[in-house]
Amino acid sequence: MTRFRLTVEYDGRPYMGWQRQAHGPSVQQAIEDVANAITGETASLHAAGRTDAGVHALAMVAHVDIEKAFTPFRLMEALNALLKPQPVSITACAIVPDDWHARFSCIGRDYLYRIVNRRAPLALEAGHAWRIARALDSDAMQDATQILVGKHDFTTFRSAHCQAESPIKTLDRLDVRREGDKVLIAASARSFLHHQVRSMVGCLSMVGKGQWSADDLRAALEAKDRAALGLNAPPDGLYFVSARYPA
Amino acid sequence: MTRFRLTVEYDGRPYMGWQRQAHGPSVQQAIEDVANAITGETASLHAAGRTDAGVHALAMVAHVDIEKAFTPFRLMEALNALLKPQPVSITACAIVPDDWHARFSCIGRDYLYRIVNRRAPLALEAGHAWRIARALDSDAMQDATQILVGKHDFTTFRSAHCQAESPIKTLDRLDVRREGDKVLIAASARSFLHHQVRSMVGCLSMVGKGQWSADDLRAALEAKDRAALGLNAPPDGLYFVSARYPA
Repeated sequence: MTRFRLTVEYDGRPYMGWQRQAHGPSVQQAIEDVANAITGETASLHAAGRTDAGVHALAMVAHVDIEKAFTPFRLMEALNALLKPQPVSITACAIVPDDWHARFSCIGRDYLYRIVNRRAPLALEAGHAWRIARALDSDAMQDATQILVGKHDFTTFRSAHCQAESPIKTLDRLDVRREGDKVLIAASARSFLHHQVRSMVGCLSMVGKGQWSADDLRAALEAKDRAALGLNAPPDGLYFVSARYPA
Repeated sequence: MTRFRLTVEYDGRPYMGWQRQAHGPSVQQAIEDVANAITGETASLHAAGRTDAGVHALAMVAHVDIEKAFTPFRLMEALNALLKPQPVSITACAIVPDDWHARFSCIGRDYLYRIVNRRAPLALEAGHAWRIARALDSDAMQDATQILVGKHDFTTFRSAHCQAESPIKTLDRLDVRREGDKVLIAASARSFLHHQVRSMVGCLSMVGKGQWSADDLRAALEAKDRAALGLNAPPDGLYFVSARYPA
């Protein structure tokens, strides 16, 4: 048995999310199906993160155990050949130790959220960004991130379906920067609650539009109540960017 | 009658190209149809450039004459509302003098060609870039651009369907730069021949792969013969970026 680490880029639009679902297509199933077609085995994938329907990945990390002998290059080529024309691509493949785990060995996850701040609808980036027509004060948004960075009870920013044992998470980084009409929000933590990034982005957008003050954001966090959430941002703009592991 | 200048972003994938065609959908037809549905008139659009099937635009410029009274903002909002869900968006709208012409007043056109230089297929950028697996020497490509910049007979780089009177064009700018695994090629001229940018990019890619030397590229240009063309790049990576007009 050899354990392979896969780096995966995907467009989340056609999928119910990363995780295999009974009622629709998933990225996990797409890769497992082609891996098992190649090997004749019944391998399962384990990923660093489980993205929701419509959420994308630049570099999701997953692992799979395979009995049949493959070089990483040949496995990657075979997977990509069969994945076509689905918008899922294996961008890197390496052999890892048998006790290395894409999810449990992961010590940091990085997300990017892309907002296009303009009146006109999106043509080229439809499904790949959140268009907000009203002018966003990205400096006010950046100032407000400091309320969320650090160790907090993020119950307000947690989906009702979240399976984490505790709502307490440490947010290592939350940065807002403007590039022309784009507003880019980077978030890093050891792990996130379900919907945490989208919920934080939704509330930051309310600050950017002047609908919420920084104090309103602080009150929402301190309420520790999902009902205090201002807005959950749509999946379109969210990208899983990287998973970090001990050197 | 009021003449409106429209700035248009579009994804070229679902279209036969900019120009109205009898045998399939075009960007021109998409906009004319909604404009005429709004006004009850039979206006025609005139554009700075006529992109091919699958070629995109960040900011195509076109004009249209409308009898009915509109503010630019209301016209833009009405067009965008009816264009949905097509991947065509009016990103700016302004009133221009009656003798201003999107095509004939244009004094410069800028294109961008996006290559992703990696082994893995494209998931997020499928249809929006040209993936080249073999490592490209972008410095050699940049050096070779100097052969093409300036006033030349570009017959080699011209489609058999090109309707321009003369194959002689002045290429003002051709720049290759690498950003990580992306190789971006910017081209500017007063005007281009049909397929000129894609043909130049195709030949530059052969230089980048080491299949052609700079001398081979020079010989292809000097041959003034379409048969001397190395390769025509696919439409996927090509973007009409901007049209320039006298101040």
